[in-house]
Amino acid sequence: MKYPELRQAAFEANLMLKAEGLVVLTWGNASAIDRDLGLFAIKPSGVDYRELRAEDMVVLDLETGTIADGSKRPSSDTPTHRELYRGFRTIGGIVHTHSIHAVAWAQAERAIPVYGSTHADHWADQIPLVRPLTAKEIEEEYEKATGTAILESFLERGLDPLEHPGALLPHHGPFTWGRTAMDAARNAVALEAVAQMAALTEQITPKPQSIPRPMADKHYSRKHGPGAYYGQIGDKT
Amino acid sequence: MKYPELRQAAFEANLMLKAEGLVVLTWGNASAIDRDLGLFAIKPSGVDYRELRAEDMVVLDLETGTIADGSKRPSSDTPTHRELYRGFRTIGGIVHTHSIHAVAWAQAERAIPVYGSTHADHWADQIPLVRPLTAKEIEEEYEKATGTAILESFLERGLDPLEHPGALLPHHGPFTWGRTAMDAARNAVALEAVAQMAALTEQITPKPQSIPRPMADKHYSRKHGPGAYYGQIGDKT
Amino acid sequence: MKYPELRQAAFEANLMLKAEGLVVLTWGNASAIDRDLGLFAIKPSGVDYRELRAEDMVVLDLETGTIADGSKRPSSDTPTHRELYRGFRTIGGIVHTHSIHAVAWAQAERAIPVYGSTHADHWADQIPLVRPLTAKEIEEEYEKATGTAILESFLERGLDPLEHPGALLPHHGPFTWGRTAMDAARNAVALEAVAQMAALTEQITPKPQSIPRPMADKHYSRKHGPGAYYGQIGDKT
Amino acid sequence: MKYPELRQAAFEANLMLKAEGLVVLTWGNASAIDRDLGLFAIKPSGVDYRELRAEDMVVLDLETGTIADGSKRPSSDTPTHRELYRGFRTIGGIVHTHSIHAVAWAQAERAIPVYGSTHADHWADQIPLVRPLTAKEIEEEYEKATGTAILESFLERGLDPLEHPGALLPHHGPFTWGRTAMDAARNAVALEAVAQMAALTEQITPKPQSIPRPMADKHYSRKHGPGAYYGQIGDKT
Repeated sequence: MKYPELRQAAFEANLMLKAEGLVVLTWGNASAIDRDLGLFAIKPSGVDYRELRAEDMVVLDLETGTIADGSKRPSSDTPTHRELYRGFRTIGGIVHTHSIHAVAWAQAERAIPVYGSTHADHWADQIPLVRPLTAKEIEEEYEKATGTAILESFLERGLDPLEHPGALLPHHGPFTWGRTAMDAARNAVALEAVAQMAALTEQITPKPQSIPRPMADKHYSRKHGPGAYYGQIGDKT
Repeated sequence: MKYPELRQAAFEANLMLKAEGLVVLTWGNASAIDRDLGLFAIKPSGVDYRELRAEDMVVLDLETGTIADGSKRPSSDTPTHRELYRGFRTIGGIVHTHSIHAVAWAQAERAIPVYGSTHADHWADQIPLVRPLTAKEIEEEYEKATGTAILESFLERGLDPLEHPGALLPHHGPFTWGRTAMDAARNAVALEAVAQMAALTEQITPKPQSIPRPMADKHYSRKHGPGAYYGQIGDKT
Repeated sequence: MKYPELRQAAFEANLMLKAEGLVVLTWGNASAIDRDLGLFAIKPSGVDYRELRAEDMVVLDLETGTIADGSKRPSSDTPTHRELYRGFRTIGGIVHTHSIHAVAWAQAERAIPVYGSTHADHWADQIPLVRPLTAKEIEEEYEKATGTAILESFLERGLDPLEHPGALLPHHGPFTWGRTAMDAARNAVALEAVAQMAALTEQITPKPQSIPRPMADKHYSRKHGPGAYYGQIGDKT
Repeated sequence: MKYPELRQAAFEANLMLKAEGLVVLTWGNASAIDRDLGLFAIKPSGVDYRELRAEDMVVLDLETGTIADGSKRPSSDTPTHRELYRGFRTIGGIVHTHSIHAVAWAQAERAIPVYGSTHADHWADQIPLVRPLTAKEIEEEYEKATGTAILESFLERGLDPLEHPGALLPHHGPFTWGRTAMDAARNAVALEAVAQMAALTEQITPKPQSIPRPMADKHYSRKHGPGAYYGQIGDKT
């Protein structure tokens, strides 16, 4: 097996998505990138998770988008991953799922408001809703355009992808990312939990208040940035 | 054991329903048909899933509806399966469950609107609600009439069963089908997820929009038909 | 171990409650009765399910309510079980849980309407809400009075306990019963599923209709009574 | 390993939180105190539950807040635990989680009303909502101030911490406690179930009534205090 570490990173993130209950049937994919090699590894399309092996990960060239190694067809969402890796130069892993509650917010075409510290631990502000695709984009290069729309929405709003490690595609679902594929998977788990909590919050009270800004900043900075004091010394996040 | 492949196909689809959490107690059944033999295999009635074996599947004659092989009573829903196999000549498997969210839509007597790509990946349009049965139908041949009502609803509306691989019976629950029994089971899993997502979507926003038609068509055609590019080459769906 | 069959019946029903996810921590109990011996076996109070053994079941005398055999304290709900066994002479097992959705209906002080066939397969009509206890009843013999209130509510309304195998106690939760302890456990599972489905139905549509009466009767009679044709010949229910 | 019993108590409570489904990723922590030694043991920060061992628990001095034994960084919530142990002298264990339904009530800034006996079995009255922190408290000593706010809210309202074994922090989530770390964990499980039941109750009926006071008192006193008759003789709770 060539590129064993890269494949292993993508493989483990894919397994985590299934283990954490984010993936119904085969609806999900994770990828990992090696910036030095200019290659990324991604789940093959439509393969049963119980039969998935590290060597099934398909390795692609970031610049050309062609297969560098692997005998299977890559995920049909591969052009979205590639577009995100090209636009977000600091990220090392990407995840896409159809997790139930995140999809519901995407279908409702709403960004997820910051109602609590669970959210603020992971996103610096609300979880953004990306602009819709045009009919032309959908028909011509749908998956690539999905990535482009995310990049444009972040650029327009001046959002740092590591401070906002995921977004919702209208009528579709979530993409998340992070410094590593495993970070991206953890952010997908966090997004699903936050999406469920936020829907319940609005059920329990008609007009919930956002978390006060100082408390959001405190929670975000406890876990991220130079003054972070969550986790063990040497942890990557 | 006679008809081992046919029985195995029905057996595995039944097991999947339980493993995926669609079946409470014994409330569910899957069948598989061999069109060349004119025989279909179905789960026996009311048997505990933990004790179920492939040889317990009951094999029936499509034309006469009599038992061709098997020592147990077939599912009480067998006449519905038979009616569907006779009317939908392209399908190879059928599933019935009382999965929680699909039943809730059936009890609410609402077709499920197409709010997102998860839905559009599997159904070409909304998940149809079948017409109610008459009192006479209920009293005389209830299970057969359930199948007839599905067939009539599809015929009236001009729906292709493979493009709309399932429907809701009012005040009852879902039937799904597919090219194989395993496809039918996968469609039952998809229907339950879509039903949950749609209910949540309406909770999160009072008047959700349907997915734009070009996006629905794109998602449906990615997975189905001549231009499909989801899954591995040689996959059956 | 004395009374091994009686203890085993109660033990297996208790295990099933936990396995089916109806029991949080130790909040649930099942009992079985031997009418010929005039004895019933019930779960000990507050024991962890992982440590529970058949011989831990406490055997009590139906007439006197005293312990006939067993070294542990019986469930604090034992007087409710005894009262029900004395009033409902056809039942062979009783279950009490705090399963989430059934409790929610009990807390909302609402009987569960018959929205679909899942419900009609198990209850001949709505799942009744029992009258509230008086302050005097609560203070003096709370657990016994819980049973008395169930009996009185059924007598007043002319309900057959086997046709309505369970009820909701206001601000408390469900009791179910059946011909055997395992039937009572299955009815507890059915009640929880039906409670969840009914709450979702009312979320999906503001004014759901009840299932048409001929369809409810058909479903109930498919599974129960002289013309039943669900399950295998020789099955007890 | 030093302090094996203390570490084991904290370790087992942490494992229970994960096993009962209260903990997403690493979002939770449990601690246990030895009042005679003046030491408490707590989960290390951000460690995967599957890799957690009893010896990873960090032992701290109650008075000074410094590490008495252990090679890892303690949970970032350690100052909250210490503050609670100092103010609530009768408690022996503390738990913090981000369990979904409890967080939703905290995000909605609502105390949980006493709708039923499940609640009354564990809390003598509603589950309190603690006062919000000031911007100054958040910026200076956030985690300690979280503890102080709980203590102040209980003091002002005259609440006994053992009769109200947990509270909600606005826009954050639940803290629970008890005579032991395992009691605190059981109370965290109870709180999550009660939070889910209460949200559903309000969905099922627009204006639910509280449980009648005599019934609440009866349920609470069945399990707690001198006349308790729930559980086996010799049980700690």
